[in-house]
Amino acid sequence: MPTAVRLAVIGAGSAQFSLGLIRDLCLTGALHGSTITLMDIDAGRLDVVHALARRYADELGADLTIERTTDRAEALRDAGFVINTALAGGHPQEEAERASGERHGYYRGPHITPPGQFDLMMSVVRDMEKLCPDAWLIQSSNPVFEGCTLMTRESAIRVVGLCHGPFGGYREMAEVLGFDMGDATLQSVGFNHIVWLTGFRIQGADGYSLLDAWIERESAAFWKHWNPRYGDTQLSPAAIDMYRRYGLLPVGDASRALWSEVWWYHLDRETKRRWWGPLGGFDSDAGWGAYLARLDETITTMGEVARGPRQRVSDIFPPTMSGEQMVPIIDALANDRRGSFTVNVPNRGALPGIPDDVVVEVPAIVDGRGIQPIPVDPLPEPIMLGAMWPSWLRMERLLAAYRTGDSRYLSQIVLADHRTRTLEQADALLKDLLLGAGYAQHPLAADQRRERLRS
Amino acid sequence: MPTAVRLAVIGAGSAQFSLGLIRDLCLTGALHGSTITLMDIDAGRLDVVHALARRYADELGADLTIERTTDRAEALRDAGFVINTALAGGHPQEEAERASGERHGYYRGPHITPPGQFDLMMSVVRDMEKLCPDAWLIQSSNPVFEGCTLMTRESAIRVVGLCHGPFGGYREMAEVLGFDMGDATLQSVGFNHIVWLTGFRIQGADGYSLLDAWIERESAAFWKHWNPRYGDTQLSPAAIDMYRRYGLLPVGDASRALWSEVWWYHLDRETKRRWWGPLGGFDSDAGWGAYLARLDETITTMGEVARGPRQRVSDIFPPTMSGEQMVPIIDALANDRRGSFTVNVPNRGALPGIPDDVVVEVPAIVDGRGIQPIPVDPLPEPIMLGAMWPSWLRMERLLAAYRTGDSRYLSQIVLADHRTRTLEQADALLKDLLLGAGYAQHPLAADQRRERLRS
Repeated sequence: MPTAVRLAVIGAGSAQFSLGLIRDLCLTGALHGSTITLMDIDAGRLDVVHALARRYADELGADLTIERTTDRAEALRDAGFVINTALAGGHPQEEAERASGERHGYYRGPHITPPGQFDLMMSVVRDMEKLCPDAWLIQSSNPVFEGCTLMTRESAIRVVGLCHGPFGGYREMAEVLGFDMGDATLQSVGFNHIVWLTGFRIQGADGYSLLDAWIERESAAFWKHWNPRYGDTQLSPAAIDMYRRYGLLPVGDASRALWSEVWWYHLDRETKRRWWGPLGGFDSDAGWGAYLARLDETITTMGEVARGPRQRVSDIFPPTMSGEQMVPIIDALANDRRGSFTVNVPNRGALPGIPDDVVVEVPAIVDGRGIQPIPVDPLPEPIMLGAMWPSWLRMERLLAAYRTGDSRYLSQIVLADHRTRTLEQADALLKDLLLGAGYAQHPLAADQRRERLRS
Repeated sequence: MPTAVRLAVIGAGSAQFSLGLIRDLCLTGALHGSTITLMDIDAGRLDVVHALARRYADELGADLTIERTTDRAEALRDAGFVINTALAGGHPQEEAERASGERHGYYRGPHITPPGQFDLMMSVVRDMEKLCPDAWLIQSSNPVFEGCTLMTRESAIRVVGLCHGPFGGYREMAEVLGFDMGDATLQSVGFNHIVWLTGFRIQGADGYSLLDAWIERESAAFWKHWNPRYGDTQLSPAAIDMYRRYGLLPVGDASRALWSEVWWYHLDRETKRRWWGPLGGFDSDAGWGAYLARLDETITTMGEVARGPRQRVSDIFPPTMSGEQMVPIIDALANDRRGSFTVNVPNRGALPGIPDDVVVEVPAIVDGRGIQPIPVDPLPEPIMLGAMWPSWLRMERLLAAYRTGDSRYLSQIVLADHRTRTLEQADALLKDLLLGAGYAQHPLAADQRRERLRS
């Protein structure tokens, strides 16, 4: 007997994201009868996505009610599940921050989350407190680590952060190392985008031996002709160097995450080419440009499909499960269908050495009772002292800046950046960040901030 | 009724240190009848110091038995108090480390405590466990923060770290700002060499107002003709800049402590001149050179006095209390004479937000019952996130490297150094540090280290 849920999707204007979600919902019979409300502030993109989503459900004969609105309150009212995939200011905001950073000698920018993104997250949970206080919030847009920690500290709304990063890494390892995903058990633990391969067994045998053998015998030849596009960098020279320095393999975005401890692999274009292949990896100017171009292309294609002859959307977007955890986790919670997931939730003792009120990425059992993180072994000390502590500290500084409106915490982040050469350089960047293009709409005004947190 | 104690002084070959100590003992009648054993591995310097110390006590008619030995066990046997002021390898070892650092682009070196210094500290407490398990160890040589944390984690010997840094800073503030020390209450809290002025009242009024007025109206004129020699830098432009960035004034060595967060003021000779006056401060090549020259001069003078005509030592070294805490704290413990001190002891809840097993510098009440740290208010968040956490993390990395023999933790310290430009530079420095001159006698051999910790 399927359970009908009310699902609100905030920031649904991304065709790729929303169609992937609708597809998984179409393929999950136990959720048929549900109502999905797509919400975005960009009415034009929302119309395209909504039209495509409806056609997709029709083509597959899935019993789903798909609505659209530009009014967030309307989407949230009485929702049982909320997915927040919105990025305040979108990619243009990120690009402005990057440009500002490069003016001061920070290649690709300092990667400081603008307060507007936290404002957006906080305003969603504040609205949920009024309109759907019992709903689950699935946080999908970044920064998941900092954002989920902020929201769960400030609100009683149930929040789970989900990220597909590790799974792409697993699939790539299977392909390159030559094992079958069905034979393997894999586990990653840490903070979102800073996760480490703590479990790796293939048919019961130690998977790290296979990795070590590959590094010794095959990696050099592999890298010689390696030309990754964007996501396919799980076994990059950078990731393997981190494995050597830390003792466990960083998974998914962990080797390319732009936190300061790994910035050594991203110092400039030349360094990036050395560690990430000819394009310089996903985060180089060329790599990121290619990614944005692909996004634009998808939007154009989707627009054409939506407006064009009645081509079947499901021909372009074949109906197979995406591998994303969002719909399966809603299914597990709504239908009490027990499953094992990787989630971002407040620690509460799951990962030793990290306080309870810091959000960690850990395995969890999910069913009708909720999300139960599984206690894991401590991470090795070189990882705790070399990667987890600095990332935790950076998060605390970022949240303290947001919470208090005191820019000195941002100054501390900039001063800890490996690319900072002098106090004056850091001060100049900070001034630009606070007053410049990317931040003009969101100055860190203490009063506004306190207002937001109190409301 | 005076209490006779047995006091062992390890590393007593420093004339300045030992004569200062003997002088305070001579002036503390309640400790007369005591036996002081001066121990050093340098028999020549020990002879000079011993001769001077005896003459000093004779001149003052103080009833003290002053012995000497180059055998540490002999000094420690049945001691009630042990002062450890020894520096493994002495200043030449430090200079070798600096030279090694400068070859790789680290002006004045990376300031990584060589394992030999921790070996020395640990071997003293291991000997004490056998020879005087109930004695108090007063740790005077650096690094007090890291060393006392190590010893108190590994041994049940009672350890207190003492430092005169803050008191020099107070005296200098009184002189420059123009208040009478007798009218002021001053309190500094933090880790040794990273302490902050948390209490500052003059005749009951807020002392920070006086400081703020001085900064606004007088600091520019003061710095214009300012030419500090070594210690007199409490109100340096660097300290005032830190006050602005952190919210409390750093005291004593806190603004010149060579931890990475404040290295911005020490980047090179030019930067140092800007923040520390014409000589570039105590830690510049010129400043440190002047300090070492003065030490040499003292040794020469003392040697001449010891060998020369029967000049009165007390004419050169007038009999007034030094202001050091060592003898008063021994008096307080031995004679149950309650007093208020600033000590370095395991936190056990005194400073909020720092674990119990990390040594903090806090005020304490000392009497016959022992040392009771006074719980203090939390340090402001910009200080916790900007200075205490990074220093705590650096300490944990240094101790993990020592404990495990795993040089990756040292690599993490070097990579966090602001002067590091590339991974390769850090790796090259580390190789040199581990294998080079300063470290040749003390390679981080895991087995040796484990042996030491087990024994």
